[in-house]
Amino acid sequence: MLRIAIAQINVTVGDLPGNQKKILEYLQKAKMLKSDMVVFPELALTGYPPEDLLHKEHFVRDNLKVLKKIAFQVKDIIMVVGFVDIDRNKNLYNAAAVIAKGKVRGVYHKHDLPNYGVFDEKRYFAEGNQHPLFLFNDICFGVNICEDIWQDEGIYLSQAQRGASLLINISSSPYDYEKLERRERLLSNRAKESKAYICYANLVGGQDELVFDGGSFVVSPRGRILARAEQFNEDMLVVDLPIDDERKKRRDSKQFIQLPTDGELIGRIVAHKNIMPRMTQDERIFKALILGTRDYVWKNGFKKVVIGLSGGIDSSLVAVIAREAVGCENVIGITMPSPFSSPETRRDAQALAENLGIEFKEIAIKEIYEVYLKSLSSGFAGLPSNVAEENLQARVRGNILMAFSNKFGWLLLTTGNKSEIAVGYCTLYGDMSGGFAVIKDLPKGKVYEISRLANNIIGPVIPESVFDRPPSAELRPNQKDQDSLPPYEVLDKILKMYVEDHRSCAAIVKKFGNLQIVKDVIAMVDRSEYKRRQAPPGIKITPRAFGKDWRLPMTNKYREA
Amino acid sequence: MLRIAIAQINVTVGDLPGNQKKILEYLQKAKMLKSDMVVFPELALTGYPPEDLLHKEHFVRDNLKVLKKIAFQVKDIIMVVGFVDIDRNKNLYNAAAVIAKGKVRGVYHKHDLPNYGVFDEKRYFAEGNQHPLFLFNDICFGVNICEDIWQDEGIYLSQAQRGASLLINISSSPYDYEKLERRERLLSNRAKESKAYICYANLVGGQDELVFDGGSFVVSPRGRILARAEQFNEDMLVVDLPIDDERKKRRDSKQFIQLPTDGELIGRIVAHKNIMPRMTQDERIFKALILGTRDYVWKNGFKKVVIGLSGGIDSSLVAVIAREAVGCENVIGITMPSPFSSPETRRDAQALAENLGIEFKEIAIKEIYEVYLKSLSSGFAGLPSNVAEENLQARVRGNILMAFSNKFGWLLLTTGNKSEIAVGYCTLYGDMSGGFAVIKDLPKGKVYEISRLANNIIGPVIPESVFDRPPSAELRPNQKDQDSLPPYEVLDKILKMYVEDHRSCAAIVKKFGNLQIVKDVIAMVDRSEYKRRQAPPGIKITPRAFGKDWRLPMTNKYREA
Repeated sequence: MLRIAIAQINVTVGDLPGNQKKILEYLQKAKMLKSDMVVFPELALTGYPPEDLLHKEHFVRDNLKVLKKIAFQVKDIIMVVGFVDIDRNKNLYNAAAVIAKGKVRGVYHKHDLPNYGVFDEKRYFAEGNQHPLFLFNDICFGVNICEDIWQDEGIYLSQAQRGASLLINISSSPYDYEKLERRERLLSNRAKESKAYICYANLVGGQDELVFDGGSFVVSPRGRILARAEQFNEDMLVVDLPIDDERKKRRDSKQFIQLPTDGELIGRIVAHKNIMPRMTQDERIFKALILGTRDYVWKNGFKKVVIGLSGGIDSSLVAVIAREAVGCENVIGITMPSPFSSPETRRDAQALAENLGIEFKEIAIKEIYEVYLKSLSSGFAGLPSNVAEENLQARVRGNILMAFSNKFGWLLLTTGNKSEIAVGYCTLYGDMSGGFAVIKDLPKGKVYEISRLANNIIGPVIPESVFDRPPSAELRPNQKDQDSLPPYEVLDKILKMYVEDHRSCAAIVKKFGNLQIVKDVIAMVDRSEYKRRQAPPGIKITPRAFGKDWRLPMTNKYREA
Repeated sequence: MLRIAIAQINVTVGDLPGNQKKILEYLQKAKMLKSDMVVFPELALTGYPPEDLLHKEHFVRDNLKVLKKIAFQVKDIIMVVGFVDIDRNKNLYNAAAVIAKGKVRGVYHKHDLPNYGVFDEKRYFAEGNQHPLFLFNDICFGVNICEDIWQDEGIYLSQAQRGASLLINISSSPYDYEKLERRERLLSNRAKESKAYICYANLVGGQDELVFDGGSFVVSPRGRILARAEQFNEDMLVVDLPIDDERKKRRDSKQFIQLPTDGELIGRIVAHKNIMPRMTQDERIFKALILGTRDYVWKNGFKKVVIGLSGGIDSSLVAVIAREAVGCENVIGITMPSPFSSPETRRDAQALAENLGIEFKEIAIKEIYEVYLKSLSSGFAGLPSNVAEENLQARVRGNILMAFSNKFGWLLLTTGNKSEIAVGYCTLYGDMSGGFAVIKDLPKGKVYEISRLANNIIGPVIPESVFDRPPSAELRPNQKDQDSLPPYEVLDKILKMYVEDHRSCAAIVKKFGNLQIVKDVIAMVDRSEYKRRQAPPGIKITPRAFGKDWRLPMTNKYREA
């Protein structure tokens, strides 16, 4: 019998003293719950991903000092915790320390370093080549890190074959809307392959564009999930594992690191934490948006956020998320009508603010806009009004919002969705101005779905008219999004194939027909790369977001043959 | 004797038909010059770096089709050219094709994939594990790619030891101001180690933030540079190599790919191209800025550029570079005085424009700025003027410039230097607005040096008063940069250690003293990461630029212990 505690914590990248404090708090909790072992996520000491902080030698040195301080506090329990290790040749390793009785007793170096999607681990780390196993009270376990268990027939299998009846995988696995199912299915299969218990300790929290969704769990050797921690929250999952020592015979004792034991803690039974039910996919998206926003705001030292409210669905959803993230007293909505704004959108913006209980301001842009036109009149003489004037309105609004941001230290949240950002239907230095782009990875169709869900969960805060009105940027008389773009149902499907799946024009046309529409959409995506490069970061929701996951050249003349 | 032609070409990422055309043109040139062999740079077919275009299967397929079309044209000459290869498991390789008599006769896959600095090759490519050598007219040669020759005792050495008397290294090696010397020193040593001729074929041209500087060359087995191509220009370097076949005995013929020969071309002697003299370091910086700007403008389909001229040194240098890059008829300078602008700076802006022969416009921002203040007055009531109002002026200017950019299709060039961008002494959506940041990697001290050099080379276009006046953003009365920042001589030295070398506060203080100044500078750099993330791309000049080379988290609480 082994009582294992998974400390699913929310740490901050670089905050070594803060992370140390949190780790020690959870260490105490685990001890109070009479756990034999407490497990923390991948790189819990430094936060994940530390990126180029790893190029600072002093940062790595400081992380080792913190590890030592933590180890000194570890008595009467075993701790597994992620940190950055360094060897004498100055190679860095994404590492796990196994700590007992005040000392690091063993270290594992991650073998399989992901270097795709949002990951750049080969930029920083060398691959591990040691495979220590650990023996504690006659129970043999192996530790591995995140990707190590995703690679077929990887290190996890050899650990099991060499005698481990428990595999501890510490992870910092970023959320996307498909990830939970993939992860649980995979780990369940790995447990069956390995005929071992698997204890999966995941990080939770937001870090720039990434959200780590937690949802740590324990799987039995038959592949059954025995216990699951919360998603999108810090949590401590304590599980009694009925591990016997049947594999003893197969062991070659020289392979093991024998950990000092504290017999008295073993064998006292508490109830397992109940298995947290899975949320629906849309509930998880909503939670991810809230957590990602809250952590960006708070971890960067902001208290309040400001949002331009147009009365449309995008800014309405962002306001809802912001209120859920930081509280109504910390959200300011500003509506900035122009002569092209309808009374209905202005009214809806105000209704939303009232429903949410957030501060609401109104600043008309007409006068400012007209002085710009006057100042530009000699330069633009004789030319028809076009996108230059439309963008100017968006930029006046951006300036007003940024003026409030600068004056009061409020973080400006942008409100663009993925469909718009994909085709460049947005104004650089206008509606793209802001520090954090909450829904930049939500396609327009999903914006409606999540808005509907939000109204269902927290009450009808977004007015129904916002759902019913055709989307419009209101930058010229009677403008509708559909004047310039295909219907969003069509657009979103094309974008899914082109952006998320990197499919060809030919393949997309084969599926949806209409060569001209597909070609137009692809051309729009290709030529707005420069805008995305200057866009604020936002929360990754799909398997491929515009961020670290999407590295297209701006200078790019590729056109399909 | 072997006559080898190095085709140092400027290709465009993704432009498969355009790159094919250029490769065939240089093939013809090489044949006219009676070369036995013509060598093109790394990934010449696709341009470098193709980044996530490599995730599009159809892109890789199209590149293979182009390779086949090119191969069909290769008669009476051997061609070595970089392309993207794919195996049956869909692994991609950064590859070189060796083509003779209309067919690809052999393929080399790059072994050492750089995944540091600006490079992400492990994101895309698998490592090669084949080492073909080639035999042509009894001359044995090996082909390797860029990084392969930078790794000690790498593939180049085994190629030489297995009998190659000529090593062909095809590269796409990005420029920085130290690179040329490092490269020539290294290759000279590699030739001596290998006792072989080395033919180094480098790419030339700008691609987003990177400039490839060309400067291809040939080194003798004694390490002497026999011939060097131009830097920063397309060029064709034709060299007769007096290679004998002394190594024949050591060869195991089974290892070789025997290439079909065209005896009649061998042995006719033309003069070597003279060795191009090296430019000075500052001349190279100036050339890199011009080439990088020109290629970003032209390859992205722009004709004209617009620049905000403040009368300061930064915008003056950018205007000079722009004129050198795209011609005076394609540069528009706009000065936008405020009540805080001095008559001197306005006069200098105009004098510069006249000296350069570029179009000059003036639009005062006072009226627009005042309407903003009026509109914001109720929101800002009772609060003192601060950075919010300063930024607003910069944003009005940004809007005016972007309005011209949108109306006329001119590319807006930004004028911020590295020192400012490092410490965040710049306004997001204000002076940071624009498509390309020409001098973003030039520290302020270098801006003065290169400006002086430019005046020396092309005549006194930048007025002397611009050099003499203390730097000021002119956003409040009598403002000077030095009110908020340490003197630039000090600042640049601290930034070099902190940004380029990732050194600690302690190490910097040890060198320069004054803990408080160093701490302040580090704090400014750390807290302006979010601005840099939204900055336009600009030309990499130093070994570590703010771009692909610099991947710091925005959410980052690391402070040195």
